[in-house]
Amino acid sequence: MKPKLSIVKIGGNIIENESALSDFLRDFAVMEGQKILVHGGGRTATRIAEQLGVPAKMVGGRRITTRETLDVIVMVYGGLANKNIVSRLQSFDCNAIGLSGADGNIIISDKRPVKDIDYGFAGDIRQVNATTIKALLESGMTPVCCAITHNKKGQLLNTNADTITSEVAIAMSEHFETSLYYCFEKKGVLRSVEDDNSVIEHINTEKYEQLLQENVISDGMLPKMHNCFNALQRHVHRVYIGLPGMIAGKEKLFTTLTL
Amino acid sequence: MKPKLSIVKIGGNIIENESALSDFLRDFAVMEGQKILVHGGGRTATRIAEQLGVPAKMVGGRRITTRETLDVIVMVYGGLANKNIVSRLQSFDCNAIGLSGADGNIIISDKRPVKDIDYGFAGDIRQVNATTIKALLESGMTPVCCAITHNKKGQLLNTNADTITSEVAIAMSEHFETSLYYCFEKKGVLRSVEDDNSVIEHINTEKYEQLLQENVISDGMLPKMHNCFNALQRHVHRVYIGLPGMIAGKEKLFTTLTL
Repeated sequence: MKPKLSIVKIGGNIIENESALSDFLRDFAVMEGQKILVHGGGRTATRIAEQLGVPAKMVGGRRITTRETLDVIVMVYGGLANKNIVSRLQSFDCNAIGLSGADGNIIISDKRPVKDIDYGFAGDIRQVNATTIKALLESGMTPVCCAITHNKKGQLLNTNADTITSEVAIAMSEHFETSLYYCFEKKGVLRSVEDDNSVIEHINTEKYEQLLQENVISDGMLPKMHNCFNALQRHVHRVYIGLPGMIAGKEKLFTTLTL
Repeated sequence: MKPKLSIVKIGGNIIENESALSDFLRDFAVMEGQKILVHGGGRTATRIAEQLGVPAKMVGGRRITTRETLDVIVMVYGGLANKNIVSRLQSFDCNAIGLSGADGNIIISDKRPVKDIDYGFAGDIRQVNATTIKALLESGMTPVCCAITHNKKGQLLNTNADTITSEVAIAMSEHFETSLYYCFEKKGVLRSVEDDNSVIEHINTEKYEQLLQENVISDGMLPKMHNCFNALQRHVHRVYIGLPGMIAGKEKLFTTLTL
């Protein structure tokens, strides 16, 4: 039987709330078994960019990663957010190690090809180096991954944290029984966006198709769900979506996804 | 016989010069045997601090690390400088992994006690975790350390890069025959600061004492030399001081220190 591995993703809303982050990291530190944390950087990057006079470039409603924006992202995600999370986890006796995709060459991506839109320094994941991540886990360390990858040619690339999470989970599933936890600001996938307690507790492929046909899944949730079912189809064991407290059993209500 | 390990320190002057950095990293990537890189962050931190409106606080000519300054240092040293160095080394097929002292708990320090001056979030090294660094080296990785440590209680601390270099070298000497390379903007320890070619090629303890008595060693070099002889006394095999090119044999003139 494969050993168990938990991969947990936290978003900007937790990282920016001092007490929510503290609570979460305390829970994460005592989570049993091997684990990996993936984080975004959230609005701190936007604030620092504004302070540095780096304009947010948008084309057709999409955010473009200019060279200057990339520098801010590397500073905030790879530096400020990542190192602070790592040092706090260390204080809870979790032997965290902060990583971008360039560190140990763990995630290689390609600069997104220019078609209608030039997204700038945005990376689409090509390969996750599961062997190196496994070696770090086996040395007793807990990888803390930020949303930055590289192209192995010396270029760092801004990469979606949800995608990093599912691609890492898929790659690790060769060696581990992998569970994926997407922590966000809702209790789970909601039947009605107006009702925070209308959580759909279990969604399998059949139910997913049905929800898609009923247009129940909201716009923001669509790419997340697509990501999740892609991960399940590629041998990830379970996916959980809900509030951060679910990782410690503090939140009883969340959504479980299975094939 | 112990395996060989090279520990190389580069300063701000190299990091800030695009072509000098590229040349250096190319040389470092092909250095034989196991190796570790330690870097500062230099004037980029000062520039970003200015742009963010974070004032440089000085007391009695000494730089104070305020909370805001620490954030800038973590962004620039731990994020921008570290991740860019790592991704470039990866492009030269050197499997670099960027680390602060918090990552893998490799360097624990204490916040400098307040006596005459409160240095703020400055760290004095208490312990280097050689076992974890050795595990990373044995996994085929090349640690790239920035000048940040932590106190194991959740606080990151700004720490002198020269001191990190020598303390890491000392700790690793239990397992390795360790050589230390301090790369800086001069060809070595100079007999006359006005003459760039007046390099003293070999300094042992006796010669060091003699140079101190003759007041030949300049102010900036004094703490560096003290650091180096401390390292040699604590079982570091050799210390080299000179231009970055010395690591590739491109610079024939440099200073070698031995006990």
